[in-house]
Amino acid sequence: MNYRLLLQYDGTDFHGWQIQAGLRTVQGELTRALSLLDNREAIVHGSGRTDAGVHAEGQVASVELQREITPPKLRAAINGNLPEDVRVMRADGARDDFHARYSARGKTYVYRIVHDQVMSPFWSRYALQEARPLDLERMRACAKQFLGEHIWTAFSAAQSDAGSHVRNVTNIEFNDGSDVRGHCHLIECAVTANGFLRYMARSIVGTLLAVGRGEIDEQTVALAILEGDRNLVGPTAPAYGLTLKSVQYD
Amino acid sequence: MNYRLLLQYDGTDFHGWQIQAGLRTVQGELTRALSLLDNREAIVHGSGRTDAGVHAEGQVASVELQREITPPKLRAAINGNLPEDVRVMRADGARDDFHARYSARGKTYVYRIVHDQVMSPFWSRYALQEARPLDLERMRACAKQFLGEHIWTAFSAAQSDAGSHVRNVTNIEFNDGSDVRGHCHLIECAVTANGFLRYMARSIVGTLLAVGRGEIDEQTVALAILEGDRNLVGPTAPAYGLTLKSVQYD
Repeated sequence: MNYRLLLQYDGTDFHGWQIQAGLRTVQGELTRALSLLDNREAIVHGSGRTDAGVHAEGQVASVELQREITPPKLRAAINGNLPEDVRVMRADGARDDFHARYSARGKTYVYRIVHDQVMSPFWSRYALQEARPLDLERMRACAKQFLGEHIWTAFSAAQSDAGSHVRNVTNIEFNDGSDVRGHCHLIECAVTANGFLRYMARSIVGTLLAVGRGEIDEQTVALAILEGDRNLVGPTAPAYGLTLKSVQYD
Repeated sequence: MNYRLLLQYDGTDFHGWQIQAGLRTVQGELTRALSLLDNREAIVHGSGRTDAGVHAEGQVASVELQREITPPKLRAAINGNLPEDVRVMRADGARDDFHARYSARGKTYVYRIVHDQVMSPFWSRYALQEARPLDLERMRACAKQFLGEHIWTAFSAAQSDAGSHVRNVTNIEFNDGSDVRGHCHLIECAVTANGFLRYMARSIVGTLLAVGRGEIDEQTVALAILEGDRNLVGPTAPAYGLTLKSVQYD
């Protein structure tokens, strides 16, 4: 029986998604919990890897189990074997051909920025602090250049092993508001694409932040996209500000 | 020169507010940071103690320093010497007679409850999970009985050393909504009073939760208030769900 799992995790204490011997990873914890349940080594597919420190509000995984179990019972059984910083929020039976990675049509990442002189302790694990002025209108305008299908070589890890660097960014949206809990100014930048190369979301946001601070202009960004030159883009924003918000399927 | 500090802290890794030898406390960290700054042992007054695990979005402290320093510089200097789970959000010069505790007119605590089958990892440090059904209308109705001046013996620690058990609860408010980040059902219960005895906020909320689950009826609550009988009230809600939201001054 094939199952689809909706996951949340606080990435702070994980070495990312991908299973690695001797390291605490999300896929590793899920594999352990599901293997206990199924009495054999479970193979858990995620919609994609998230790097060390990156969080997820809506990661999706698929797993095939020999044991038949109702989705609510499956959810409770997995959560009973997981640490509290990763949770199965939902479990559903899935068609045999559903695969969390290959069936995915797109993903949305959100990057959070506390734009204040002081970093609220309630955001320090989940957002980047930027105390310098940011020209948000300039950032919004520049973000439009990223939309569409591009070769993202300048905005991904140099050693990226993905064959093609072509991805289609379908939406970049800023949400600029005040957070009632941390009593602070919170900027959220949500990026949606049909897929992301390694560091791509953080590189886009890091570049937009450099644009907002006036360190890079729009022409330079255009050139970076065209020429695939990593030297033209802003510094990659740190992992802890990034959250995988949702994965889209047909 | 007398200063007023607005503080936030994530209470998870603190043994509460009050300074204690050998334990990590908020007052202890502030005293250390301010003493370094003032080259003498600083005496930091909080609006009141918070117990181990309780958080603060708006704790207020006062401190008298021999050194004169502008409030923004003071804020930066203190934060430079503090761990990231406690922050001075604001510093202001204050009148000589301002005292964080004696000048306080009231306080608002908020208690957060994730009312869902699964606990989001983004709330597990800051909210109590309740998976059982809750009759929120009954809780709201019952909360009205708490309003006004009462003797809170039934709703405070048995060994409470405070002289009088009389406090005036001026407002109890429920906020029932969905949290966009954790994708969960979040209930917030905010209690405002001119002062709180030890465990009083958590005992009020614990009792209201028992009412919501149908374990205690309104008449029993009325009796508990009248007779001061601790056996009639619900279990004290755990510390990690509680946050000191604000302190009111004239």
